[in-house]
Amino acid sequence: MSRPSLLLLLLLSAPGALSAPRRGGAAPPAAPYLTRYLAQQIDHFGFDENLTFQQRYLIADQHWKKDNGPILFYTGNEGDITWFCNNTGFMWDVAEELSAMLVFAEHRYYGESLPFGNESFSDSKHLNYLTSEQALADFAVLIEYLKENVVGARFSPVIAVGGSYGGMLAAWFRMKYPHVVVGALAASAPIWQFGDLVPCGTYFSIVTNDFKKSGKGCSESIRNSWNAINRLSLTDAGLQWLSSAFHLCSPLKNLQDAATLKSWLSETWINLAMVDYPYKADFLQPLPAWPIQVVCKFLTDPSLPDKPLLQNVFQAVNVYYNYSGEASCFDMSQTATKNLGQMGWYYQACTEMVMPMCTDGVNDMFEPQKWDFDALSEECFRLWGVRPRPSWILSMYGGKNISSHSNIIFSNGGLDPWSAGGVTQNITDSLVAIVIPDGAHHLDLRSRNPCDPKSVQQARALEIHYMKQWIEKARHNH
Amino acid sequence: MSRPSLLLLLLLSAPGALSAPRRGGAAPPAAPYLTRYLAQQIDHFGFDENLTFQQRYLIADQHWKKDNGPILFYTGNEGDITWFCNNTGFMWDVAEELSAMLVFAEHRYYGESLPFGNESFSDSKHLNYLTSEQALADFAVLIEYLKENVVGARFSPVIAVGGSYGGMLAAWFRMKYPHVVVGALAASAPIWQFGDLVPCGTYFSIVTNDFKKSGKGCSESIRNSWNAINRLSLTDAGLQWLSSAFHLCSPLKNLQDAATLKSWLSETWINLAMVDYPYKADFLQPLPAWPIQVVCKFLTDPSLPDKPLLQNVFQAVNVYYNYSGEASCFDMSQTATKNLGQMGWYYQACTEMVMPMCTDGVNDMFEPQKWDFDALSEECFRLWGVRPRPSWILSMYGGKNISSHSNIIFSNGGLDPWSAGGVTQNITDSLVAIVIPDGAHHLDLRSRNPCDPKSVQQARALEIHYMKQWIEKARHNH
Repeated sequence: MSRPSLLLLLLLSAPGALSAPRRGGAAPPAAPYLTRYLAQQIDHFGFDENLTFQQRYLIADQHWKKDNGPILFYTGNEGDITWFCNNTGFMWDVAEELSAMLVFAEHRYYGESLPFGNESFSDSKHLNYLTSEQALADFAVLIEYLKENVVGARFSPVIAVGGSYGGMLAAWFRMKYPHVVVGALAASAPIWQFGDLVPCGTYFSIVTNDFKKSGKGCSESIRNSWNAINRLSLTDAGLQWLSSAFHLCSPLKNLQDAATLKSWLSETWINLAMVDYPYKADFLQPLPAWPIQVVCKFLTDPSLPDKPLLQNVFQAVNVYYNYSGEASCFDMSQTATKNLGQMGWYYQACTEMVMPMCTDGVNDMFEPQKWDFDALSEECFRLWGVRPRPSWILSMYGGKNISSHSNIIFSNGGLDPWSAGGVTQNITDSLVAIVIPDGAHHLDLRSRNPCDPKSVQQARALEIHYMKQWIEKARHNH
Repeated sequence: MSRPSLLLLLLLSAPGALSAPRRGGAAPPAAPYLTRYLAQQIDHFGFDENLTFQQRYLIADQHWKKDNGPILFYTGNEGDITWFCNNTGFMWDVAEELSAMLVFAEHRYYGESLPFGNESFSDSKHLNYLTSEQALADFAVLIEYLKENVVGARFSPVIAVGGSYGGMLAAWFRMKYPHVVVGALAASAPIWQFGDLVPCGTYFSIVTNDFKKSGKGCSESIRNSWNAINRLSLTDAGLQWLSSAFHLCSPLKNLQDAATLKSWLSETWINLAMVDYPYKADFLQPLPAWPIQVVCKFLTDPSLPDKPLLQNVFQAVNVYYNYSGEASCFDMSQTATKNLGQMGWYYQACTEMVMPMCTDGVNDMFEPQKWDFDALSEECFRLWGVRPRPSWILSMYGGKNISSHSNIIFSNGGLDPWSAGGVTQNITDSLVAIVIPDGAHHLDLRSRNPCDPKSVQQARALEIHYMKQWIEKARHNH
């Protein structure tokens, strides 16, 4: 399968996010957890096939008050659940304060929760049960199972927590199953990055702003790099030079390969915007504090001739891919389709999760590219034999018309491109928005850190305040 | 296919309810409507099969205020939509007062809205898309289509209206798609007739009470009739006598046929309880006013010997089946599986709609029968090759834990056995219950009638009051 274009944008587009956790990368969990499995219907919405699969979930009850203390339930997204468990330190940090049990539920078709084992991705028939609706049904059934089977949990109030696509699921879960969860913390959840709810270009202009303010000449250098690559790609010698300058494992052979190089670079800048954290971290890749500032140190002179400009771009990219200094060459397919997690998300982006994106090269630093639904549809048909239905998600989850729901916190990072599709203003008293100006992609869900900016500390305090309120009210109602 | 047992209880168990309307039966609609069709996804929840079918809907805009006036949307249930259109006079009566457009949407797999045409019921594969979730998705997509394509309807507030299973759908529609409908009138909707939410015997004790208070000796006569039949069924002569006494088209041959006779009689009593209206009507069958009182005139002496007792029972049943005097013999299969509508409901009762029912012969006038889920499951597997999932509907729609929703009116008839599973007490300010003590099955949805008891007049006034409130609020929000 060839590399999908940027039309199929991943939410967490790096290998680390989607495959098993790397050794020595993420911080160890604050406390150990148990790994459990529950038999789930493969098709909650039909009765013809009565097959089940084993859904994995992780459970930690060290701090749980066994007399109906609350449960924080992570609505797993597109990846191995142990990775989310290890990268959602906030839940571990607050477990004691809330006397809460922690549950991390794996999303079907990711990690170990494969409905048809190795056959899960073999064709559109086996992929047919990979939808957000089926995933939410899994979560509902799992919580009801826990309430019935864990002693002391029958009346435990449950709060959904999730980040990114997991944040979308947390919000949607509260909307669709308010009898199962008393509230939801939806961190960096772009629930409005659909249809024409938000402009398609904002996402990339946020990425651009992150670079613009992180160093003089930085975003302009990147903007100028595309034509530099285009000019060099016209000759075999230029392609050879590019392959060598970017330390590519497989040399570029033609214009299409050069386009792949540009996509790979674009994704790198996007990922950097998502993980522009104020301290050394290993979320998508091991990176220094404020990595865009580090990257931008190499990109101060946008007026350089093509080759020196691109040599600087390589140095910048090298910060992202080779902070550890171990990479001998760069494999451009590494951020793409190598593992099941990414396969799953590409399928979802080809069916329900149609997020229009566009660039104009003026308000952003990328090559201009219009949103092209027809091209997406063709690519999806070629890849999976399915056609996307872009309006379905709006019909299902209500688009901007969600004011009748309650008890959802939408938190957003000002640096995070996904805030473009997020809820950034209060809708009602109990559908509240939090913006963390210095935050990247769901910084608030990460462990407390001495370098945390004030804004994320305040955000977390407010989140805890609301969660306590929901728990209190649930206890009162019960 | 043999007659399904009472385990599979129909909500509207008469041929009239489920097949095309009879000529000369129902009152003509107050105004003409247009018949339209919309292409709908056969599977809203999966992308492998991209097939569509034509959903039928009826539309009447004579009274509609074209500048975003409201829409009353009937969430069609288990039958031909023209029949519901002609039997929901309330909507026609209030259209002018509310300046409302009327839309009646047919439920998939009923009437003309057959996803696979004549093959729709051929096997569990073709039946796989017959669920309440798919039906609600049809309704949501249809409303969004109308708002986009009917000039002046873009901001029309939509109110869901339904009775019986259609009332359940109306309530669930507001719960799951509050962005699509601003409120719902759920008339005689037994949304709690699931799991152990209500006692399984209340339904039959309500039927019994209706007979008890409609004539001295009436319910006792029926209670005594079962053993009379049992005794006669022991001999061929007795079976012959029964066949002749009940004017059966096909004579009884064995004990199993006698059991069928008893089921048929039970269903008749149940149906009479549902349609015990205060005026001559033709809902399930053409009937006199207060039909149970008429029936009970034949059932005054429960102490009669078997044969005269059963001759009286025949006279009573004859009121129900032969008020017009045209029937030459009675076909017991007529209330069962003859038409697609009933096929569809039996399938739904075998999958999602598992409504526990039981009798004890003490608090009710029926032969004692425990709720037997295993027997149901076996019967469903034999009939359709599927197994019911009794807890799914609770996971999906929340059981009794629905207080976070809003703007739903649950109306109930005190005479209606389905009120056993209905919401009969207010849950919150905007989840309100109405009980109509003199009302049978969704009497409030019928046309105004000079014989209407005060209680139903008051109920309708209150319903209109709430609907106006929702419309006003929607207009204000817009």
